[in-house]
Amino acid sequence: MTNSEHAPDRRRRRSDGARTHAAILDAATRLASVEGLEGLTLGRLAAELDVSKSGLYAHFGSKEQLQLETIDAALEVFGREVIVPAHEAPEGLRRLEALFEAYFSYLERWVFPGGCFFASLLAEMDARSGAVHEKVVASERQWLRDFAGYVEAARSLGELRADVDIEQLVFELYACMELANYHFVLFRDPAVLDRGRRAVAHIVDQAR
Amino acid sequence: MTNSEHAPDRRRRRSDGARTHAAILDAATRLASVEGLEGLTLGRLAAELDVSKSGLYAHFGSKEQLQLETIDAALEVFGREVIVPAHEAPEGLRRLEALFEAYFSYLERWVFPGGCFFASLLAEMDARSGAVHEKVVASERQWLRDFAGYVEAARSLGELRADVDIEQLVFELYACMELANYHFVLFRDPAVLDRGRRAVAHIVDQAR
Repeated sequence: MTNSEHAPDRRRRRSDGARTHAAILDAATRLASVEGLEGLTLGRLAAELDVSKSGLYAHFGSKEQLQLETIDAALEVFGREVIVPAHEAPEGLRRLEALFEAYFSYLERWVFPGGCFFASLLAEMDARSGAVHEKVVASERQWLRDFAGYVEAARSLGELRADVDIEQLVFELYACMELANYHFVLFRDPAVLDRGRRAVAHIVDQAR
Repeated sequence: MTNSEHAPDRRRRRSDGARTHAAILDAATRLASVEGLEGLTLGRLAAELDVSKSGLYAHFGSKEQLQLETIDAALEVFGREVIVPAHEAPEGLRRLEALFEAYFSYLERWVFPGGCFFASLLAEMDARSGAVHEKVVASERQWLRDFAGYVEAARSLGELRADVDIEQLVFELYACMELANYHFVLFRDPAVLDRGRRAVAHIVDQAR
């Protein structure tokens, strides 16, 4: 056979491999949102997926690689569920409000079975060190910059007071989103999300 | 020998045992604040303390018992470091402010090497089930009740507006304390604590 006759098979194999890889990472994000990223060993994930540990090893090579790719997979989900809906709204307060609503909706619909993947990750990895900790530091800084950009745009448009301290406001808003997540998951009580919604609306109102 | 001649030895042995038990729990709270309560196996703790796993087993019998007692030991530390200083201040806003300062000081002094034990615990155990989850639910509800009591006292004394929503205010204040903990530990940056201090002062000011 010539190379060109081989190609479709090779492409299908690559494509099957990519689908399997993505399916493993999907399961990994869900498991880690409940049990933590540190509990995400190749053995634990193999048991969950009912596949062999050596098969998973072929995909990731190490627990750390699995953890790093799991964070990237969860970032994709967060982007699709929270960031994209925010960007569908016009810049300024409407985008900020769309961000809040997308976040609370993402919690309410249990996109991850353990609540917000990144809220869990932040608390789990804050005191550790190493490549996973460094990745969390970098992604948290990126999120704070993006969030500050949304607030800055609202201030530039005159929708927030000119003397508003952007980073301080981001901190207070984000704090309420995070605690709403933890309490919603801990108490399994949807009323917590309404408390979160009222909190961010109240904090924004004080800054108008 | 008579019973009375035996007694001092027995008392000393009991007392040695109690001291050892307390020392194990002290190490357990410190380890769990960094690595999580789920990582706190008898084997992991035995390695940390350089004692035998069977010796630890004699003290606790199970990982779950060790976890539950570790939470109680951490509650004692939190009480001594945060609640007692708050109660040394007079009721009302001064007590609330003493509570904030005691909390930020407890973070700043790294009383636990992984930051606030209970902030870590909340995020780790929110999505789980079982006896440890239930204990976290109960202790979180108690903390929210105590916190609401401090705010309520300030409102009763006329230091906060009569129309203040106590539980909503507690939520916003507590959210900022928690995020200050996570970001302080993640970024290892003391400036985060000042952001937390400004946030709670700002939120209280809005409620005066």
